Amino acid sequence: MRRRFVILVHRVPVRGTFTLNDLAGGAGRMDEVARCVSTALTVSNGLRGDTELTLLFMAEPPPASRRIRVEGARVRYLNPDERSTAALLKNALVRSIPLEHDVESSPGIVVGPIDPIAELRGRLAEPGAMWLTEGGRPLREHPVGDSGFLAVLSDPTDPLPVERELLEGSGVPRVSVGPRSLRSSQVIDLVHGEMDLREAAPARTV
Amino acid sequence: MRRRFVILVHRVPVRGTFTLNDLAGGAGRMDEVARCVSTALTVSNGLRGDTELTLLFMAEPPPASRRIRVEGARVRYLNPDERSTAALLKNALVRSIPLEHDVESSPGIVVGPIDPIAELRGRLAEPGAMWLTEGGRPLREHPVGDSGFLAVLSDPTDPLPVERELLEGSGVPRVSVGPRSLRSSQVIDLVHGEMDLREAAPARTV
Repeated sequence: MRRRFVILVHRVPVRGTFTLNDLAGGAGRMDEVARCVSTALTVSNGLRGDTELTLLFMAEPPPASRRIRVEGARVRYLNPDERSTAALLKNALVRSIPLEHDVESSPGIVVGPIDPIAELRGRLAEPGAMWLTEGGRPLREHPVGDSGFLAVLSDPTDPLPVERELLEGSGVPRVSVGPRSLRSSQVIDLVHGEMDLREAAPARTV
Repeated sequence: MRRRFVILVHRVPVRGTFTLNDLAGGAGRMDEVARCVSTALTVSNGLRGDTELTLLFMAEPPPASRRIRVEGARVRYLNPDERSTAALLKNALVRSIPLEHDVESSPGIVVGPIDPIAELRGRLAEPGAMWLTEGGRPLREHPVGDSGFLAVLSDPTDPLPVERELLEGSGVPRVSVGPRSLRSSQVIDLVHGEMDLREAAPARTV
């Protein structure tokens, strides 16, 4: 099953101007963004080759906006901890400063400039797109077809009004992992856990 | 529902002699231990007051072994990132060096010396105990009664032979969250996710 996550990132400095010693503060919650990358792509002693995660840095005006894509099938140097994962992402952001096109900042990590709204609109039009948010349809009852899923969720900052408008207007299903308001990384773990069970028991797939 | 996690910790220096800048290396995978603490006790913008997590530092000879208990109902200064969580735990370990009894190193965090084998044996005898490991009964089919659960799992290092012997001999049920070998923190997220759903829909509880 193809598994894709798209995280809307709001407060991380897009030029990579932050210290690895204060990820939860000055780095605009890069700790949780790095944790999302880490838990989406790794299992115990391995990587999820079927998974791709994209960070969309939304809050800056378009000339400054960036996209980082991490491909589980090709990524290297991804260690399990927040700090080293944040270092890989920081490197990508720094490398992208003069860019007008995508570049691979390290194996399996591609960074480039985007128009964030056009980018989000495009992703929401892809097959299997869903919006992970509170009050949606239970994940366990949400069908996923052969094309896999593309799950859009926000970092610790709520979606901006313009993003919410796009999400609501897109018509993609709203899906929830449970009754509590969880951290983005926890939501990712629950999505993977559900899909692992479906793949292991295809006959019981919704 | 009372939720208790017990993590067997093997390689973290029990005197707290490690740097916060190398949690995944010299700190003996303190990154993952801290991530377990963090994800067990926190949700988005809050704490899980029903949850208690205990770290048992197993690998050292008994005079050096330590137990750290983190109580969700009382803990303070617990931020969501690995580094600051590791700092709280390091502080607890450093404070415990001359100790012969438990002390609260910061609000909601209690540290003290233990005989690790006797301690593990005692925990396995408590109501609701289960061993989270591969190849066990599916969590979704595992009943949890009014006393809640006590889930024992290992940090990134496999249980030592003496621990495995105790776990196997205890008769506690082996329970698995899914078909894949996941990180300890991911397993914790899946356990909480399942129990959140059960509490929200008691009629469908196994």
